[in-house]
Amino acid sequence: MARKVITTQVAIMGAGPAGLMLSHLLATSGIESIVIEVRSHQQIAETVRAGILEHGSVNLLVDSGVSDRVLRDGDRHDGIELRFNGESHRIDFKELVGESVWLYPQTDVFIDLAARRNIDGGDVRYSVTDTTIDDLEGRPTVRFTDADGQDFEIQADFLVGADGSRSHCRSQIPEAKRKRHFHEYPFAWFGILAQAPRSSDELIYANSANGFALISQRTEDVQRMYFQCDPKENVADWDDERIWSEFRKRINGNGFEIKEGPVLEKMVLPFRSFVQTPMRHGNLFLAGDAAHTVPPTGAKGLNLALHDVKVLFEGLDSFYGNGSSWLLDSYSDRALERVWKAQHFSYWMTSMLHTAPDADDFSRARQIGELHSVVSSRHARAYLAESYTGWPGEG
Amino acid sequence: MARKVITTQVAIMGAGPAGLMLSHLLATSGIESIVIEVRSHQQIAETVRAGILEHGSVNLLVDSGVSDRVLRDGDRHDGIELRFNGESHRIDFKELVGESVWLYPQTDVFIDLAARRNIDGGDVRYSVTDTTIDDLEGRPTVRFTDADGQDFEIQADFLVGADGSRSHCRSQIPEAKRKRHFHEYPFAWFGILAQAPRSSDELIYANSANGFALISQRTEDVQRMYFQCDPKENVADWDDERIWSEFRKRINGNGFEIKEGPVLEKMVLPFRSFVQTPMRHGNLFLAGDAAHTVPPTGAKGLNLALHDVKVLFEGLDSFYGNGSSWLLDSYSDRALERVWKAQHFSYWMTSMLHTAPDADDFSRARQIGELHSVVSSRHARAYLAESYTGWPGEG
Repeated sequence: MARKVITTQVAIMGAGPAGLMLSHLLATSGIESIVIEVRSHQQIAETVRAGILEHGSVNLLVDSGVSDRVLRDGDRHDGIELRFNGESHRIDFKELVGESVWLYPQTDVFIDLAARRNIDGGDVRYSVTDTTIDDLEGRPTVRFTDADGQDFEIQADFLVGADGSRSHCRSQIPEAKRKRHFHEYPFAWFGILAQAPRSSDELIYANSANGFALISQRTEDVQRMYFQCDPKENVADWDDERIWSEFRKRINGNGFEIKEGPVLEKMVLPFRSFVQTPMRHGNLFLAGDAAHTVPPTGAKGLNLALHDVKVLFEGLDSFYGNGSSWLLDSYSDRALERVWKAQHFSYWMTSMLHTAPDADDFSRARQIGELHSVVSSRHARAYLAESYTGWPGEG
Repeated sequence: MARKVITTQVAIMGAGPAGLMLSHLLATSGIESIVIEVRSHQQIAETVRAGILEHGSVNLLVDSGVSDRVLRDGDRHDGIELRFNGESHRIDFKELVGESVWLYPQTDVFIDLAARRNIDGGDVRYSVTDTTIDDLEGRPTVRFTDADGQDFEIQADFLVGADGSRSHCRSQIPEAKRKRHFHEYPFAWFGILAQAPRSSDELIYANSANGFALISQRTEDVQRMYFQCDPKENVADWDDERIWSEFRKRINGNGFEIKEGPVLEKMVLPFRSFVQTPMRHGNLFLAGDAAHTVPPTGAKGLNLALHDVKVLFEGLDSFYGNGSSWLLDSYSDRALERVWKAQHFSYWMTSMLHTAPDADDFSRARQIGELHSVVSSRHARAYLAESYTGWPGEG
């Protein structure tokens, strides 16, 4: 079969939340897009990924008409607890800054977005292969083979690389034109799903001499929890008893006991900070994980991705609506301002709560001094709450 | 001459601000003390040391009747500026937390305290030699030779080691009974006194790709300024032009120009964090620099010393007044809570503002992200202001 040529306004690589949300937003303004994705719909929908949504992300999903399921099925959390020296201290988001976050898996955000695009007749092509991109500085083209073996070439005004942390688009930007900022952390998270009742109604971020632990929730009967581990840890070495004993050491005490049960899943989560700048090259725009990765401590990854595409949509809408490229030209700077705040917040939460393998007595005591400073200061608690729930004034 | 034996309630080693303030406070409650000091009065009075006093420190000096000279001769500062990417951002202490700090040299605090002790007939012996301390776990004794060659032995209920960063008292606590927390920073401060008008009415803390710089003030005509340097820097290698060129690189721009003039003094200030815990052993109490050193970035050294002796005075006063040792027994914990907050604050200001010699692209960009977060958040500015001016509720 001959290669079919299709033209569109915006070609989008990647049908994760960033790519689908952008396609959805563009559609609300009558701007055409095609989304292509190497994974199948089922593959993405079955990849279990946790998620904490800032209020701005929730508003974006609800107000743009994607779905209000997050408000019905998500769990609104009005605070978190910081636990250290065996005592818990609540950071009351609602009281401090008037905002909340929603516990709602990233997987469900994808499902909602994919369903909405489907209902609205959006052009989303899963399971494509042999993708190549070209002419990034002119009129970009994307070649691929679809699930039925048909070859295509998309010709678009703009190409958006929303193709995740192993982005193909990102690597097509010439080395001389971009900078990569890496930070490696000397630990990872050991994550589990366990068949157990909730240990707590809200997330508990626990600092202990034995390392960090995080109590989270999923449903009434299944819980998600993490503890800091060596990046080379092998899940096969950990049976249930060893896992629970690690949690007990880090979090139990003074009347608090983690609720245990059979471990259903276990995994080691990588831990790194990465940013590629700028987030634009010619007519290619990067968005979400394709441009940046944050460690999970700050729960910012999905929120940054949604913020990126909101800013990018504003730029594209202004370009197509009134011919002005000013907003589009400022996309990279505007998106990066929040990206670096989020990188800092994630780094801060990580360094305040984790135990560095090489921490000396000073570092450990200073860390406790910092936690004391934070929980005993309304200003510091509000600063943390504001960062966690999403900085104001930027959606 | 035979060794003369004197008895007192509290023997105090060190006639710096901590030792003299404690002696003064004890006198206001009719508690006897003797202060001994290896340096001469003149030597201390001629050692130029900068100082920024928290409002609590000012209140302590004024309310306890030492002197109100700080209010007349000191400069009240209602804020500082954080400068980065060539722009200054004011942290308005007064508006954010309703408090101020006072620029008032530590040397003057010493002069005021020494004068007050002198007027009140306090027993302060300068220029002593051959000091030894004994019986820390029983009834402490201090032996020394005074300026006239007379040998003495003080027998006291309690001994207070306020003998500064090279404390002799500190080292008399058995190794098994104490812990030393060190942190080395990979830089120092190059400090100057310069004959020049003020460059600014308030302190400017400048972060730049070339390293940190600090604009401070002393009088109308003489200014105190610092820039980050290598700890091994030799002042002899720096002529005026080289010094000013370094300041210009780090701080000038966008309409701001440092005011230059002949450099009158130059010095390299060491940069370290140190805490020895606990701050008590038997009947020996450590206070001020004898127990802890902070880097100068947070301006906390003198304030912590005054806070220590305030807390220690409360303990001694309660012990002698109503026989309760409860407050005295909690001295170390109460003092250390603030010490670790101050260590953290100093570490935070230092790491946010200085350029680590090994900083990679990520660290540099994250640091700018942090500075953006701080200046753009009222909560973060208030947290900084509250820490800088002195945490509330503890005097």
